[in-house]
Amino acid sequence: MTQPLWQKSDTQVDARIMRFLAGNDVVLDREFFLHDITASKAHVEGLANIGVVSADERDALLRELDILAGDFSAGSFVLDERFEDGHSAIEARLTERLGDAGRRVHTGRSRNDQILVATRLWLKEKLSTLEALCRRIAEVCLERAAGDALPMPGYTHIQRAVVSSTGMWFAAFAEAFIDNTLRARQALELIDANPLGTAAGYGVNVALDRAHTTAALGFSRMQVSPIYAQLSRGKFEMAALDAVGTALLDTRRLAWDLSLFTTAEFDFVKLPAEYTTGSSIMPNKRNPDVVELLRASYASVAAARTEIEQLLSLPSGYQRDLQFSKGSLFHGFSMGLGALELLPDMLARFEWKADKMRAAIEPAMYATDVAIEQAVAGVPFRDAYRAAAETAASAGEGRSPESSLAARTSPGAGHDLMLDTLRKRLESLR
Amino acid sequence: MTQPLWQKSDTQVDARIMRFLAGNDVVLDREFFLHDITASKAHVEGLANIGVVSADERDALLRELDILAGDFSAGSFVLDERFEDGHSAIEARLTERLGDAGRRVHTGRSRNDQILVATRLWLKEKLSTLEALCRRIAEVCLERAAGDALPMPGYTHIQRAVVSSTGMWFAAFAEAFIDNTLRARQALELIDANPLGTAAGYGVNVALDRAHTTAALGFSRMQVSPIYAQLSRGKFEMAALDAVGTALLDTRRLAWDLSLFTTAEFDFVKLPAEYTTGSSIMPNKRNPDVVELLRASYASVAAARTEIEQLLSLPSGYQRDLQFSKGSLFHGFSMGLGALELLPDMLARFEWKADKMRAAIEPAMYATDVAIEQAVAGVPFRDAYRAAAETAASAGEGRSPESSLAARTSPGAGHDLMLDTLRKRLESLR
Amino acid sequence: MTQPLWQKSDTQVDARIMRFLAGNDVVLDREFFLHDITASKAHVEGLANIGVVSADERDALLRELDILAGDFSAGSFVLDERFEDGHSAIEARLTERLGDAGRRVHTGRSRNDQILVATRLWLKEKLSTLEALCRRIAEVCLERAAGDALPMPGYTHIQRAVVSSTGMWFAAFAEAFIDNTLRARQALELIDANPLGTAAGYGVNVALDRAHTTAALGFSRMQVSPIYAQLSRGKFEMAALDAVGTALLDTRRLAWDLSLFTTAEFDFVKLPAEYTTGSSIMPNKRNPDVVELLRASYASVAAARTEIEQLLSLPSGYQRDLQFSKGSLFHGFSMGLGALELLPDMLARFEWKADKMRAAIEPAMYATDVAIEQAVAGVPFRDAYRAAAETAASAGEGRSPESSLAARTSPGAGHDLMLDTLRKRLESLR
Amino acid sequence: MTQPLWQKSDTQVDARIMRFLAGNDVVLDREFFLHDITASKAHVEGLANIGVVSADERDALLRELDILAGDFSAGSFVLDERFEDGHSAIEARLTERLGDAGRRVHTGRSRNDQILVATRLWLKEKLSTLEALCRRIAEVCLERAAGDALPMPGYTHIQRAVVSSTGMWFAAFAEAFIDNTLRARQALELIDANPLGTAAGYGVNVALDRAHTTAALGFSRMQVSPIYAQLSRGKFEMAALDAVGTALLDTRRLAWDLSLFTTAEFDFVKLPAEYTTGSSIMPNKRNPDVVELLRASYASVAAARTEIEQLLSLPSGYQRDLQFSKGSLFHGFSMGLGALELLPDMLARFEWKADKMRAAIEPAMYATDVAIEQAVAGVPFRDAYRAAAETAASAGEGRSPESSLAARTSPGAGHDLMLDTLRKRLESLR
Repeated sequence: MTQPLWQKSDTQVDARIMRFLAGNDVVLDREFFLHDITASKAHVEGLANIGVVSADERDALLRELDILAGDFSAGSFVLDERFEDGHSAIEARLTERLGDAGRRVHTGRSRNDQILVATRLWLKEKLSTLEALCRRIAEVCLERAAGDALPMPGYTHIQRAVVSSTGMWFAAFAEAFIDNTLRARQALELIDANPLGTAAGYGVNVALDRAHTTAALGFSRMQVSPIYAQLSRGKFEMAALDAVGTALLDTRRLAWDLSLFTTAEFDFVKLPAEYTTGSSIMPNKRNPDVVELLRASYASVAAARTEIEQLLSLPSGYQRDLQFSKGSLFHGFSMGLGALELLPDMLARFEWKADKMRAAIEPAMYATDVAIEQAVAGVPFRDAYRAAAETAASAGEGRSPESSLAARTSPGAGHDLMLDTLRKRLESLR
Repeated sequence: MTQPLWQKSDTQVDARIMRFLAGNDVVLDREFFLHDITASKAHVEGLANIGVVSADERDALLRELDILAGDFSAGSFVLDERFEDGHSAIEARLTERLGDAGRRVHTGRSRNDQILVATRLWLKEKLSTLEALCRRIAEVCLERAAGDALPMPGYTHIQRAVVSSTGMWFAAFAEAFIDNTLRARQALELIDANPLGTAAGYGVNVALDRAHTTAALGFSRMQVSPIYAQLSRGKFEMAALDAVGTALLDTRRLAWDLSLFTTAEFDFVKLPAEYTTGSSIMPNKRNPDVVELLRASYASVAAARTEIEQLLSLPSGYQRDLQFSKGSLFHGFSMGLGALELLPDMLARFEWKADKMRAAIEPAMYATDVAIEQAVAGVPFRDAYRAAAETAASAGEGRSPESSLAARTSPGAGHDLMLDTLRKRLESLR
Repeated sequence: MTQPLWQKSDTQVDARIMRFLAGNDVVLDREFFLHDITASKAHVEGLANIGVVSADERDALLRELDILAGDFSAGSFVLDERFEDGHSAIEARLTERLGDAGRRVHTGRSRNDQILVATRLWLKEKLSTLEALCRRIAEVCLERAAGDALPMPGYTHIQRAVVSSTGMWFAAFAEAFIDNTLRARQALELIDANPLGTAAGYGVNVALDRAHTTAALGFSRMQVSPIYAQLSRGKFEMAALDAVGTALLDTRRLAWDLSLFTTAEFDFVKLPAEYTTGSSIMPNKRNPDVVELLRASYASVAAARTEIEQLLSLPSGYQRDLQFSKGSLFHGFSMGLGALELLPDMLARFEWKADKMRAAIEPAMYATDVAIEQAVAGVPFRDAYRAAAETAASAGEGRSPESSLAARTSPGAGHDLMLDTLRKRLESLR
Repeated sequence: MTQPLWQKSDTQVDARIMRFLAGNDVVLDREFFLHDITASKAHVEGLANIGVVSADERDALLRELDILAGDFSAGSFVLDERFEDGHSAIEARLTERLGDAGRRVHTGRSRNDQILVATRLWLKEKLSTLEALCRRIAEVCLERAAGDALPMPGYTHIQRAVVSSTGMWFAAFAEAFIDNTLRARQALELIDANPLGTAAGYGVNVALDRAHTTAALGFSRMQVSPIYAQLSRGKFEMAALDAVGTALLDTRRLAWDLSLFTTAEFDFVKLPAEYTTGSSIMPNKRNPDVVELLRASYASVAAARTEIEQLLSLPSGYQRDLQFSKGSLFHGFSMGLGALELLPDMLARFEWKADKMRAAIEPAMYATDVAIEQAVAGVPFRDAYRAAAETAASAGEGRSPESSLAARTSPGAGHDLMLDTLRKRLESLR
């Protein structure tokens, strides 16, 4: 490894301890490296604005930072154990190429604000992806909610309760993912604050051009308190993971439905073949593995959140404990977004088995309809309920699922109006 | 206990099982009972609007609901094990007093949407309280940040790093609680949707006046999908707890600071005597117990969130598992808000020990200032850093904490401008 | 409230702060009060052994402690807000009744070791109950595993896989609860150490007779380090909750099975009527609420564990944060053991629907049998697998579930030997 | 990738979905690959014992399995995306080298029992390492507890309370890690059961020689129920992580102590230089980063446990969700054991600063001694306490820390006897 920036001549380094200190930091820093370079460019511009680097030095530094980004993306620059971390690697490269101009680049900043700003930019990108995915899932659900109107049993306690429909099922997840879109936007609004320029958490005695870096990096506001910039580490990461988690919670319930609906016993849904796999020992099996992994993916987001949450029982100021939050963040987002990415296609393409669902609608499932009709006709509901309970088994005589669904008009004027309301709300979240 | 609403004549009831089913549900329902009554009034009005109850019945039901609320508040009506739950208790009371009008009240609604709407109203109230508390804490911090400007050591790794100040410390928690104010508002916006009228999760064959109940109960929108109304149970509770949790995370770090600052070793802070307690065996002790319980309170919010999170691996539709979310919600909010309520007064009244803090500022803490001054003067920063490292111990000669702080002007024009920015942002969140 | 033990004359008490400090401590202390009295008796005997109280005082103190325990059990002594906590209440009562003898009782002990020893005794009792419940559940499962031998589908991915049987299902949970019995015993072994006599965490300058209290209270060893006695608070509570949790994890999977098996779609199981409930709006419903609450009960144990876990990021020595562990412990154990208590009866009494299970066994479920028969006959398994995959649908021709099960002899000599092995292992855990 | 084992000719494979299904499974399988080979050897021997493979085939298979293990260890065989997973890779290699003998190797087993047995062997190895590390840490603590007897303040609430010593501090962590040694052994005992031979969770129609594989793989018992073998997945992993977690909980508190003791304010401890690092911006800093990462490492174990816990709300039978448990397990153990490995050396080598600790012992810290001396002399303790409270500040006149410590004889005959007890208990755990 290159000499750490802070290395003094009289200290010996123990390889085992250095490994523990580094962890897989350099590998994780790859994930944030391009954002670190982007922020470094803004920092260089800011330093030029206040005269700490000259215009020529600025241009040279910006050029080299672009080259480094290109080399990294192309694979000709590899961020590996030669460097203590990604931050040090940038300074080392600039110094190697530009000498004193490179040695000036760390003026007024700390690795603490480098990782803060790089993570912040990374999170903004990921939360935008999350928002787009939630929106796309909502759109697919809205489309199928409008197109599908097949009767199916509605369950409570996984017991057949009343008549429902595939349109109602899709509308539910449409509304869920509209809320999840809102939640992603809220998380983005919360964290959209520039920490660059807060140094090691107490500011610095040079009048950095924070207004410039805030604008150049596209932040909507400056994080003004240096101490709070440090306090927000972990807190903002958790807020971002909460937003992913809420989408995965709904995904888990959706996957549970599909897991049941694809059993031989329910048999309501046929998945595209590529969403299933076989067994190494049982020749007869086709398993809905993708659905199960979608269900499981919440666990990874929860784990990431737990790991960060456990780190945060600390006094204010940077503590090295926070280093571990990088790996968790990466794990939670890659697993969470990876799962959500599969949903639009799968939701668009699975097939309902109309006849199986219709066959599962039993006469007793109209008993609530009967009781309420009588209540509307003047019988006190509790009496109507008791009467219907006695005759539940025969409640459905002469009734059809379609008429039962058609009478379900409470949210104004039925299913179409509901979808219209949802479409407008989704539109308003742009 | 009174006969459950659903009880059929042929089933025997096992006391032990009934106890397990009920848990302390009736006790918890006390917490939500007034909200249940409020929602019942809106439901009755809605039923009258569509002719299911007459105008006279409506007036009688509303009057009896008000009387019940009064009796409950006054303690003359006790919600206890005589009732299966709070929802049944309302119907039983109205039937006892008004006969058939009471038997009509459950037309078109289910206990599922009763608990949904009551919890939603309760959460709105609690999140408003949370928002107000966060705002108040931010205000106190802003006031003390403006008034206090005492130098103190700034720490990273709990090691003395650079000069900081009490004003900077308070400004950090001001910005933290401004963000927490935003987060409370975001949670409120997310959950501010009326579930009343969605019945058991699939709507109902009577055209309930949901527009009326939405407006009457002060919701900003209708939750249109009945299935989603059920899916949002637990999900919304977690979102609300996330908002409390974020405020408690900052409280935990603040309490950690005070816990350290009140040790004999740091000795930077004197707490008002009533915030400390003694020992039963050690005559010499005064302990900062309140600070420690503030630190610990995050645990209760985390536990509440865990309990609900663990319930939510389920297919869609109501499942009885969700009953357990009521207790968690109550636990998390009562402990979380209980802790936050103590903060404004304690933050306003504790005293800094100026001399002790000043004495803890060592000469080496100016080394960063020295290095950066040289960098600004033209020495490449990395060279200036190495030079300063050699002479760190003597860096402070001729320097004062005040001048070090005064040079920390990066966020524009120093501390006052920062506070001004924060005040404006807090103001914008009304 | 009575004056706190540590109250000095010059401090005013703020009611709001005192409420926050107390929480519902006194209410929770009721749970541990009898154990606190038991430990107090041992402490008094120990003090007499070393001459700090006289024989007469000892006898009087023991008598009054017994009276207090009786009064408390009978309800004539109520532990309420008049007392700071249960520990103070004991000293107050003894002093009121016996004057100086009462004032001597706290010699050499702290409330810290009072709560430690009372919790330890409580945990020992609860873990013994846990062990007995796990054993009883295992026994019921073994009985039904021997009596039931009905064929049923075996599932992987909730997809029909191969033939299984009700006997195999019960044997699985028998082995699970044998392991859970072991785990309860291990937790008991871990925590079975006497902390009484460690005072505030640093021992005390009087030669307490710890050997006597260890023996008198039935501990298998002394916790020798006073500092570790404090460090073990929370750690031991978590270990105990881990043991409850492991039993509830299996309960959750068992409840999931029953939740599916009682759907109309599977329809494999009929629950006794008192394990189901009805709906307030849907006259036709019977819901397996007990099964769902059994499934949900793991959540409460997880929440309790989280609450304690979150408190434990602390330096050594007692901190007030730990007070919150009492409520969590009570919550986790009462919910966890409450759920387990229902299992033996429910497991003993539910009925399998033999015809429905048999009807669900499809011919393709014999494909694995076919492939393996061929492999045993000399065809390489992977080839046999591919051949069987082609003809899976017709694999079952001429086969019966009984013969498929009979051929499953791998664990030695089939089902009966397996049960015998399990019975012997359970027996060995006495 | 090679064709999956279960691939049928008529299904197309979608690359994106295959990636999601695979995750980084193949990479993780590297961790378990040698154990999978070891178990495959036992399985082959078992197949030979019952005549499914011939003696020649057996010898050839065993030889190739050894070669594969050698190639893998040497890096000449790389487990990568060419294979669906490690299990398939073994079969593919054996088939490539040995033709039909390779195609026979999967007779009577499933990938489910392959991963179960490989994980079980891996866990046994890791738990043995955990036990050895806990034992080693306890030994180091015992050595230093005997050698160090320097007075230091004892804290409660991080407030100076009574006189303690470095010997008492080390003894506490010795007892902690003796308990942790026990916990590691208990976890090992719980999971030490052979699942190989349970196939896909329902056994198999060939009389596998499970007694042989159980003995050959060194398991202390057979896991007899095939369904339970599947139910124990995740449950056993959590039990193993609980054992790591308990050691890390103590590590976290130990690290907290060192984090405080190395501040300028406490200044009780000097760490070896290689356990500290510097800052990129502040020339004056030396930070105890290793101590902070030790404190943080509990978070990774907690995250691993959460991830698995979240997966386990499932009916019985294998579900693909469980795949995610492999990554968590690896993360939790590698971070947890990685932290523990650093402890023995660091604990052996850090230096106490005797003069600083002595200077921190204030006269008031003898007040408890004074009160108890009077209590022993006949003054009722509560009166003695009140008197000592009045004069706490002057309590220490004429007293020394050494005499205070010498009087702390309660656990029999003082510090040496305590250490002797601990040594014997540790010895008994072999």
